[in-house]
Amino acid sequence: MPELLDLAGIFVFALSGALMGVRKRLDVVGMGVLAEITALGGGVMRDLILNVRPAAFQSLGYVLVPLAATAIVFFWHPHVARVMPAILVLDGAGLGLFCALGTLKALEYGLSPLHASLLGVTTGVGGGMLRDVLAGEIPTLLYDRELYAVPALLGSGAMAGLYTVGLYGWPATLAAALLAFGTRIAAMRYKWRAPLARGVTPPE
Amino acid sequence: MPELLDLAGIFVFALSGALMGVRKRLDVVGMGVLAEITALGGGVMRDLILNVRPAAFQSLGYVLVPLAATAIVFFWHPHVARVMPAILVLDGAGLGLFCALGTLKALEYGLSPLHASLLGVTTGVGGGMLRDVLAGEIPTLLYDRELYAVPALLGSGAMAGLYTVGLYGWPATLAAALLAFGTRIAAMRYKWRAPLARGVTPPE
Amino acid sequence: MPELLDLAGIFVFALSGALMGVRKRLDVVGMGVLAEITALGGGVMRDLILNVRPAAFQSLGYVLVPLAATAIVFFWHPHVARVMPAILVLDGAGLGLFCALGTLKALEYGLSPLHASLLGVTTGVGGGMLRDVLAGEIPTLLYDRELYAVPALLGSGAMAGLYTVGLYGWPATLAAALLAFGTRIAAMRYKWRAPLARGVTPPE
Repeated sequence: MPELLDLAGIFVFALSGALMGVRKRLDVVGMGVLAEITALGGGVMRDLILNVRPAAFQSLGYVLVPLAATAIVFFWHPHVARVMPAILVLDGAGLGLFCALGTLKALEYGLSPLHASLLGVTTGVGGGMLRDVLAGEIPTLLYDRELYAVPALLGSGAMAGLYTVGLYGWPATLAAALLAFGTRIAAMRYKWRAPLARGVTPPE
Repeated sequence: MPELLDLAGIFVFALSGALMGVRKRLDVVGMGVLAEITALGGGVMRDLILNVRPAAFQSLGYVLVPLAATAIVFFWHPHVARVMPAILVLDGAGLGLFCALGTLKALEYGLSPLHASLLGVTTGVGGGMLRDVLAGEIPTLLYDRELYAVPALLGSGAMAGLYTVGLYGWPATLAAALLAFGTRIAAMRYKWRAPLARGVTPPE
Repeated sequence: MPELLDLAGIFVFALSGALMGVRKRLDVVGMGVLAEITALGGGVMRDLILNVRPAAFQSLGYVLVPLAATAIVFFWHPHVARVMPAILVLDGAGLGLFCALGTLKALEYGLSPLHASLLGVTTGVGGGMLRDVLAGEIPTLLYDRELYAVPALLGSGAMAGLYTVGLYGWPATLAAALLAFGTRIAAMRYKWRAPLARGVTPPE
């Protein structure tokens, strides 16, 4: 079940990467590369920081699932104009799953709840940040005006809290992931905003 | 005392990151993320290359100091127009401290003086490079027309030299840091320039 | 001989980095930094993922060769307008060598042929990606319309295949490197294209 959640996270992140490739008018190879990096980037960062060999370079599924996602987007992607909302929703789902799973792995490797949450956030946002930087855009993470890092921190913190009180296993992981995903979607839907410093006007 | 120098470096780099957030009109969350990445990025790179678990994911202060810096900038930052010089000066201070401390740690882990200096430079410039790339700018490091890598190399080389002749402890570290910082500030003040290749005109 | 191939790869990648510095009108220090990062970036990524201390921080040649390449470009670079084709050809040569050598090292560290190929591609494309991102451009790798990742994958896959059937040593490595290099050059010469998703028009 955790493996299934992990592959689900990889799948939705890979879809968001391949769709970004469509939006940037990349060919099928560029789409595949962006799908792989988006899907695997956060987990690789997590494993490098935990000082273990990255899971992405040991599992068959981690490498093949992004290729499947690329094929799906290549053959069945909707019109380009409809792509952006899908990127954001799928990205939110991947964010939630990766935050929960990254925090869990960090706790299992002995990090404190605070640092495990920080590493969970890194796992969740790392792949999307690489995707945005490689596509020549400022990461969504920074233009947090519709909240991106906050849901990531909520999901990771919830996972660390549940683990600390002895609640883990896939229902706890799923609950933490859904908390992050739900907050992210609600923030987009209701346009929740983080405050700006005095004298700062938002871009455009 | 080394811990204090380290936290001071993290603090000034975090200030420069949060101020870059103001300049890019990010909200408080984006400012905080940029502060954390600027402050911790170079040290994480150093520790990954030394193949040890990054200090940033073990210490409480490393995570909290950038948040304090973000709060200070959020509530008391001067007018946006005055932000850029402050970023550059604080960045120079962080550069000096991180070069000296990064070189020292690398020497303690058995790297040769040359390679320790190289890793010290990486420690010093890594966080600022991530800050610039994430903010959508070409890193200051590359537009070295007012010298950036040169002071970093001077400070790191001085630290490696002092260590090799048996002089270490915080006065030596501070001296190496001040050498890099002073050279950087002097280069900005007196507009010291590195040469361009023949036929190359500087960008505007 | 493998060391010689490795230094040759570092040299041509460093040339491509220094020439990118000329193209971006950087001074000699910026050129040197870009040369070092382009030449060493892919190998550092490979070694971090293999969880060993990066070779770049242990060998003298790895650090000095990019400086020599920078000096050559600084004193003898042709007119700026003629720089871009040279970057692309040298980049192709570095790509081939690094894919073959990266795959080989990954196999020696026990990765499966599939994952070793993936890490070989990472070794080959990593430095160039860093070069492009730092120079403020979208990586060549993504605008794969003249094939970039495909030759990398061919070369890495060939190396993994040869190794699996017991053929290794420098002739095998060189053959795999030439396969990637030749495919890359042929793709540029004959304008081989990867397909676009339906409804996607290429950028201009």
